[in-house]
Amino acid sequence: MTDHQHIVSSFDRDLEAIQAQIMKMGGMVERAISDAARSLETRDDELAEEVRNRDRAIDALEEQINEEAARLLALRAPTANDLRLVLTVIKISASLERIGDYAKNIAKRTSVLSSMAPVNGSPAALRRMAREVEEMLKDVLDAYIQRDADLAHEVINRDEDVDQMYNAIFREFLTFMMEDPRNITPCMHLHFIAKNIERMGDLVTSVAEQVIYLVTGKMPDEPRPKADKTSTDPSIAPS
Amino acid sequence: MTDHQHIVSSFDRDLEAIQAQIMKMGGMVERAISDAARSLETRDDELAEEVRNRDRAIDALEEQINEEAARLLALRAPTANDLRLVLTVIKISASLERIGDYAKNIAKRTSVLSSMAPVNGSPAALRRMAREVEEMLKDVLDAYIQRDADLAHEVINRDEDVDQMYNAIFREFLTFMMEDPRNITPCMHLHFIAKNIERMGDLVTSVAEQVIYLVTGKMPDEPRPKADKTSTDPSIAPS
Repeated sequence: MTDHQHIVSSFDRDLEAIQAQIMKMGGMVERAISDAARSLETRDDELAEEVRNRDRAIDALEEQINEEAARLLALRAPTANDLRLVLTVIKISASLERIGDYAKNIAKRTSVLSSMAPVNGSPAALRRMAREVEEMLKDVLDAYIQRDADLAHEVINRDEDVDQMYNAIFREFLTFMMEDPRNITPCMHLHFIAKNIERMGDLVTSVAEQVIYLVTGKMPDEPRPKADKTSTDPSIAPS
Repeated sequence: MTDHQHIVSSFDRDLEAIQAQIMKMGGMVERAISDAARSLETRDDELAEEVRNRDRAIDALEEQINEEAARLLALRAPTANDLRLVLTVIKISASLERIGDYAKNIAKRTSVLSSMAPVNGSPAALRRMAREVEEMLKDVLDAYIQRDADLAHEVINRDEDVDQMYNAIFREFLTFMMEDPRNITPCMHLHFIAKNIERMGDLVTSVAEQVIYLVTGKMPDEPRPKADKTSTDPSIAPS
């Protein structure tokens, strides 16, 4: 074995290891989304607290991935595909960290909400929305590891469903608040949660764009269809 | 002049150029914050539309900075300080892009709100909050260009003021909504805007952390003081 081959294969091992870290981080974030939504629906303060505490491990893993990426750039000076891989690792881990933050934020509000009167049906709707985002995240991680740009495109399109679920929930909250002022405070918190889940969907979309960049060398041209209409359409509010 | 000197000084020029791009992007984002907040207060639809349109140029500049950073990594294989500089450029431009997105989002809601009855005093309070974030951004960009870790730390501490302004506004909105159901829909939108400004402050804090990393080689240890209490303190709501 020549020195050159030796160096190359050890670099390949490094690249594999850092991708394994991304998959590990992705798994932790999937679990955070799922547990945050479950703790909200079942009013489980203990589980919510666990989600909050576990976020530190996600943050630490992102930092570790960043350090490893910097080390690879400094020692290996990768070019072309390998460089793209290291750059996407940095971007994807940043998106995953932010999704984890949103899950933590949901868990925080769960603790507040469990001291208030429940709002009919809303936590179940939010959990369905969270489950959709979790599925998208699972698929985009598959797309990443399989270098499947088509699957990544599909994930981007599915974000529209999440936006539509969000629109429906936003309208529902406005109705609840108008019907009974006692719903105002819990609905403000629930609405935050809905918006956080919608933002998680946007972040999964960013990961999908990085997968496409990694596979094709180009960022996708078309902006994804944007179906959160609450910021632009006054008629959406039943006022 | 030797070849080596020639290469080094041309690399230095490249590094200066990419930092100039960051400063340019920062200026565009400052202006977006300021104009978004002004359009909200003066109910100026035209200015809001301008902010929305100008966001494309901010996004394009981020993409350009990313491409230039990738080119520098591939061609120059920087190490140590130079590598850190290129990595912080990638992170800082990502944060600036997101602040720009929030400004665009505020401008979108401005257009919706201008068709509704105004809510007393709130846009002025939001504009004060936005002005604080704009000042923080100006200072963190100064800290970046002057490699001033102390100033960056100061910016991180000031984010607490923004969080406290947000808490006050959150309470105020709940009161308005309970007093008069007609305030519910506009307050939901105004509340989004308040949260977006609070998040902008968090992103300026991330930029400050990158400045500290660039100057000291380490991320700051202490998490910044977190003073958004609305997600954890049920007593904050007058319900």
